[in-house]
Amino acid sequence: MIVLNTDFGLEGPYIGQVKAVLHREAPAVFVVDLFSDLPAFEPQLAAYLLAAYVGEFEPGTLFLCVVDPGVGGRRRGAVVQADGRWYVGPDNGLFNVIARRATDLRWWDIDYRPARLSASFHGRDIFAPVAAQVARGDAVPGIPVDPALRLDTGWPGELARIVYVDRFGNCMTGIRAAALGDQARLQAQGQTLRRVRTFSDVAPGQAFWYENANGLVEIAVNQGAASQELALGIGDPVAIGA
Amino acid sequence: MIVLNTDFGLEGPYIGQVKAVLHREAPAVFVVDLFSDLPAFEPQLAAYLLAAYVGEFEPGTLFLCVVDPGVGGRRRGAVVQADGRWYVGPDNGLFNVIARRATDLRWWDIDYRPARLSASFHGRDIFAPVAAQVARGDAVPGIPVDPALRLDTGWPGELARIVYVDRFGNCMTGIRAAALGDQARLQAQGQTLRRVRTFSDVAPGQAFWYENANGLVEIAVNQGAASQELALGIGDPVAIGA
Amino acid sequence: MIVLNTDFGLEGPYIGQVKAVLHREAPAVFVVDLFSDLPAFEPQLAAYLLAAYVGEFEPGTLFLCVVDPGVGGRRRGAVVQADGRWYVGPDNGLFNVIARRATDLRWWDIDYRPARLSASFHGRDIFAPVAAQVARGDAVPGIPVDPALRLDTGWPGELARIVYVDRFGNCMTGIRAAALGDQARLQAQGQTLRRVRTFSDVAPGQAFWYENANGLVEIAVNQGAASQELALGIGDPVAIGA
Repeated sequence: MIVLNTDFGLEGPYIGQVKAVLHREAPAVFVVDLFSDLPAFEPQLAAYLLAAYVGEFEPGTLFLCVVDPGVGGRRRGAVVQADGRWYVGPDNGLFNVIARRATDLRWWDIDYRPARLSASFHGRDIFAPVAAQVARGDAVPGIPVDPALRLDTGWPGELARIVYVDRFGNCMTGIRAAALGDQARLQAQGQTLRRVRTFSDVAPGQAFWYENANGLVEIAVNQGAASQELALGIGDPVAIGA
Repeated sequence: MIVLNTDFGLEGPYIGQVKAVLHREAPAVFVVDLFSDLPAFEPQLAAYLLAAYVGEFEPGTLFLCVVDPGVGGRRRGAVVQADGRWYVGPDNGLFNVIARRATDLRWWDIDYRPARLSASFHGRDIFAPVAAQVARGDAVPGIPVDPALRLDTGWPGELARIVYVDRFGNCMTGIRAAALGDQARLQAQGQTLRRVRTFSDVAPGQAFWYENANGLVEIAVNQGAASQELALGIGDPVAIGA
Repeated sequence: MIVLNTDFGLEGPYIGQVKAVLHREAPAVFVVDLFSDLPAFEPQLAAYLLAAYVGEFEPGTLFLCVVDPGVGGRRRGAVVQADGRWYVGPDNGLFNVIARRATDLRWWDIDYRPARLSASFHGRDIFAPVAAQVARGDAVPGIPVDPALRLDTGWPGELARIVYVDRFGNCMTGIRAAALGDQARLQAQGQTLRRVRTFSDVAPGQAFWYENANGLVEIAVNQGAASQELALGIGDPVAIGA
């Protein structure tokens, strides 16, 4: 299975172009869209988000991930194997959290160059063909490197910022709920939020935080949009504690 | 075939997580997205909308439907068989219109509980595995109940409210056009609208109502957005008559 | 392979209804979404856009394309074979650019009429069944005509207008970059833009034009939205030269 995670949007041409390449190169592999609206421009936000979502997929799954503000410049491309799952995309921090949390880790610098290479769409021209090749079980088209050379160990264990706002206005942070206690308060935009189990535990219109279905600390409003009620957006800071 | 109807949005992670479960549990079954932007929070609106769309699918089709503001609370889950088609989702009214219009009806309370159950995403954790099981032809994981115990018969035959606004701004109501005459007027936001056959029958910019391609009374503007021109939105009332 | 290009949006019911027909009529054919957000109402804009995207798909590919403001009126439906690829949709100019640039061209007026025909959704009722039939390799359900009778030769070779705005705010024009020199300036909303190779060649926030990954002249801002910074939208004119 290939799982797509990009900031491309589904409705425009980019995801379709990537899927057409995958179908041509690996027609037997099932492809599914996970995130098509990852935060653009700041791969660190996507890195903490993605790390919470990969665990429910079986070993062997390949994640094709593209948030690529540096496309056409000097950033490398990466193939990563972490705890039995595969990751293909730009080497700009996108896989930093997944890799640091893995117990079994391998890393390759991509050295594949297609006959035709655009300056702005390596998702189609490099990462999709490489993903198809790896998903088919072929040799990784890259140079093995010591992962320690590629990891930024200066990043925090948990990221106290908003990393995703879903279509309901729920605001996910880069903090795992398991890192906090049941009594922990969260501060966001001057408001103090307490933890509850789920939406239906509070009155409509009330704001709270809870452990979302993938283990992240998420700020929400029952039957409302937390992003609007609390004026929260992608990248905004939150704080832990009373 | 499994047909997905949710308020999840396609671009975020939720639909992809559901599809990954369906693929794992029923890899041979074709899955297609119908509505990914059902009205949230008010299942009655979605109930009248969905009832207009299921008839064009062949008997045997399974509809996995999730609008679930009460997730994690005490609402039941339902498997419904109505006129040969299957429905899986929360028991909150979502299947009330389809069921009441059916001539052949069976109902089960879901009693499936997964090893891992989140408090906020039963679409992934309960309804998707149950849908896969039923679509595969396995026994329904539920307790058969008399449908009369589950139906709310107090709902109107036609719902005179906006139940969906499409991306062009066309506003669908919960009224079937067959219930109205050719001369019937519709009142919306103080304006009186007459019936025409289709868009190209009126001048650009003109508002009207017509029988949409699924039999519903729909308010539209030729080459314009009725939602903007008439300031109409989800849940707004309309009235029949001069 | 069937490639979908419409103005329907993915989240509403229309694309799903089309895919259900395709699956019923041609279950073995792979279907992929390319554009689901083509500019509505003005097929000429979509015509120049699509022409830039079809070349990367292999001969034999079928493009089901629907931008159909005249649905239910007197416009014809078309099946076009151009340089080995197939096109099915309304005959309203949508295939005019592709056809005029083709060296090998055949044209049919669709004469298929389904048992049930809505007045507003020929994408589902006519074009999808016809596309499935052609993709299966059956005879074209249409009347062959001399393409010269169907082509509007008055359209310019390049269209100096915005034909698409992607989700990042990048603004594609209907001009092929190969028609311009490296030193060519572009005028848009009173601003003069120079050509660069790609985003990472300029500072964040700076506007420019470049040859996008499909050969079109595209106006962009590094890590910003050109549509907002330059107040550019679908259909707006641009000018070539200093």
